[in-house]
Amino acid sequence: MHPNDPRLRTFVDVDAASDFPIQNLPYGVFSMPEQPELRVGVAIGSQILDLAVLESAGLIRCDEVRGVFAKPSLNAFMALGPKVWSQTRGRISELLRHDNPELRDNADLRMRALVPRNRAQMHMPIRVAGFTDFYSSKEHATNVGTMFRDKANPLLPNWLHIPIGYNGRASTVVVSGTPIRRPRGQLKPPTAELPNFGPCKRLDFELEIGVVIGQGSAMGEMLTERQAEEMIFGFTLLNDWSARDIQQWEYVPLGPFQAKAFGTSISPWVVTREALEPFRVHGPAQDPKPLPYLRQTQPNNYDIRLEVDLRTEKMAKSARICRTNFKYMYWSSVQQLVHHASSGCAMNVGDLLGSGTISGPEKAEHGSMLELSWNGTTPLEIDGGERRSFLEDGDSLRIRGWCQGDGYRVGFGEVEGSIVAVE
Amino acid sequence: MHPNDPRLRTFVDVDAASDFPIQNLPYGVFSMPEQPELRVGVAIGSQILDLAVLESAGLIRCDEVRGVFAKPSLNAFMALGPKVWSQTRGRISELLRHDNPELRDNADLRMRALVPRNRAQMHMPIRVAGFTDFYSSKEHATNVGTMFRDKANPLLPNWLHIPIGYNGRASTVVVSGTPIRRPRGQLKPPTAELPNFGPCKRLDFELEIGVVIGQGSAMGEMLTERQAEEMIFGFTLLNDWSARDIQQWEYVPLGPFQAKAFGTSISPWVVTREALEPFRVHGPAQDPKPLPYLRQTQPNNYDIRLEVDLRTEKMAKSARICRTNFKYMYWSSVQQLVHHASSGCAMNVGDLLGSGTISGPEKAEHGSMLELSWNGTTPLEIDGGERRSFLEDGDSLRIRGWCQGDGYRVGFGEVEGSIVAVE
Repeated sequence: MHPNDPRLRTFVDVDAASDFPIQNLPYGVFSMPEQPELRVGVAIGSQILDLAVLESAGLIRCDEVRGVFAKPSLNAFMALGPKVWSQTRGRISELLRHDNPELRDNADLRMRALVPRNRAQMHMPIRVAGFTDFYSSKEHATNVGTMFRDKANPLLPNWLHIPIGYNGRASTVVVSGTPIRRPRGQLKPPTAELPNFGPCKRLDFELEIGVVIGQGSAMGEMLTERQAEEMIFGFTLLNDWSARDIQQWEYVPLGPFQAKAFGTSISPWVVTREALEPFRVHGPAQDPKPLPYLRQTQPNNYDIRLEVDLRTEKMAKSARICRTNFKYMYWSSVQQLVHHASSGCAMNVGDLLGSGTISGPEKAEHGSMLELSWNGTTPLEIDGGERRSFLEDGDSLRIRGWCQGDGYRVGFGEVEGSIVAVE
Repeated sequence: MHPNDPRLRTFVDVDAASDFPIQNLPYGVFSMPEQPELRVGVAIGSQILDLAVLESAGLIRCDEVRGVFAKPSLNAFMALGPKVWSQTRGRISELLRHDNPELRDNADLRMRALVPRNRAQMHMPIRVAGFTDFYSSKEHATNVGTMFRDKANPLLPNWLHIPIGYNGRASTVVVSGTPIRRPRGQLKPPTAELPNFGPCKRLDFELEIGVVIGQGSAMGEMLTERQAEEMIFGFTLLNDWSARDIQQWEYVPLGPFQAKAFGTSISPWVVTREALEPFRVHGPAQDPKPLPYLRQTQPNNYDIRLEVDLRTEKMAKSARICRTNFKYMYWSSVQQLVHHASSGCAMNVGDLLGSGTISGPEKAEHGSMLELSWNGTTPLEIDGGERRSFLEDGDSLRIRGWCQGDGYRVGFGEVEGSIVAVE
């Protein structure tokens, strides 16, 4: 059976609502209190399958290359290429099947290879080579354009032709759970004559999907749709924390810089492209027709349900503030990658592409506080009597995402971050 | 004597016009045809001093850490910090002195440790962690603003308050001599209704200095002037190749992306901050006074003379097209770095900051074809009868730079690149 087959079962206990059934098998990097070396594992139910242990035991091997799982990032494994990714996932699926005794009946190995997720410390799954952030939701770009530019013509002339993107800062991409310190920066309120330097007052999140590039391309090389697709290893949730007031003052003419440089959070589990195959969908119709280098012959979007929860310091439990879907994206990840390399830009193993803020057509589907509060003009009323235009110190923001199968889900887990006051 | 002392002499033959006297000692990464392993060396006259050989021979040692010179980049050495940088340079200077027999009189070691530069292959001196490009010449920003925006108000309102910068693409930073393929991209001539995709027609260079960051800082940490200065390991020449037509269509609202992603060239020798000490100068007066976090208590500019030569395929020898100076820069490298970290952005060993195009007040001091040909309206008349508005296939562009001492120069060598046609 193919590792995506809905009929597959595993001998590991997996709750029906789990993000991590045997049809998923996402990769992450973890350590345990009693074993602090970072290594690669796969999430299965409430457990982690330790691939370094499996490799030592001779149950798994990658393309004759040894030790790719006893590493602090997925980069070495990703570098082996899509055939190895697929073979490895197939072998892991086989080892976890309910009717395969290899691991199931080896009590000693099972004990060492399957560890409880709730005791593990998760780390950055990849060493980020470069981080690029796109701007590919038409609804989001339209909302921003309507607020700040021209209601009648909210999209700039290039938007429908180019998957607009910019280089972000790789050094501050962090794993879920890392606290985010409120950034300082130059702020110039519209009424002030001169800028001042101080804590950001309009701190925001951006709900995004992160695309993990697992294969490089040479300088000067263009990519076809097929080549680009095969370079994509997998996907994460991504929160592109943003300082709207710093951005507003700094961004002309060279784009956002410090407004986006203080932190970007990703979920620890990389869901493979292969696991998302059953959830492929066509994106929105593209009109005007993209230039030939950007044309698609297949559905390159994915039906990924996304939710954002906010919990302030005063709230006993979190409240839902957004529910949307990755399928709305106008430009697909494949188009983004083809465009990224189009000038001759080399891509590297470990590059991370942010999809851009994912907003849907309805107000409750907006993927940022900027849109949810309409630039602070209609503060969000949160369950429990709190109101928010932007994020305040102590706020915790949590993004979840999953694909709904028939009786199971292929999930991403979550990316969480809490705002820490700046002294 | 201090390694910068003008009276120092070496037993190695050094031409009076050489960029690399004993007062310089820049670091690079090289290999030889007969010894292809990449390793760290120091340029002295027409020779390279192989530091890996010196370390093996026990003549040099860094902070008890072994093997930092037998590496394909300077990153491991840089990570040891400014005290080690200074001690190491002091020791290398000592070993090269005319009156020190340690290396001078050891014929076998001397033969192995000193190799001719003209037989060496130079490589990227650093593994670029992140590449950030600034926009810090007031003359350049004024020229661009005059051409494309408003002659009466060429500078945008933020320019005099912020060292404006943006994240560039690290994957295509290449060493001098690497051919640059003409990029393709989306172009929309003003008269066209729709964009097309094809070879860039307005290919340009940008004369810049690269600042090599040798120490990291933590996420959330701000830097003082002093801390920022001590994180700077050294400087290179840098050519930020630019596709003006791609840029014009893509850059709103998130800045340049593919217009700058196809290649950035740097010179192979990193001139240390310490070697430039004698050439410190005050930058232009800053009015309005910068915000307190950007204030400087010392001269942070450097008097570095810069020249650009162009040679077309038809020309027998190259012609000077620009002569300017790094001292003109409005925002210093220290201010750029302080601003870079100000939001809480972590800096990494191996980060590279481009100064921004260096233009002086006179027309012959403009650091790009865009300015030299005034956006193509006054094509440059080159010696030998050729004319250029932008760069054409087969053109070779060479930047040189040096500080002039009394009877010696502390030079950068050169960064060269030739334009290759796209098929």
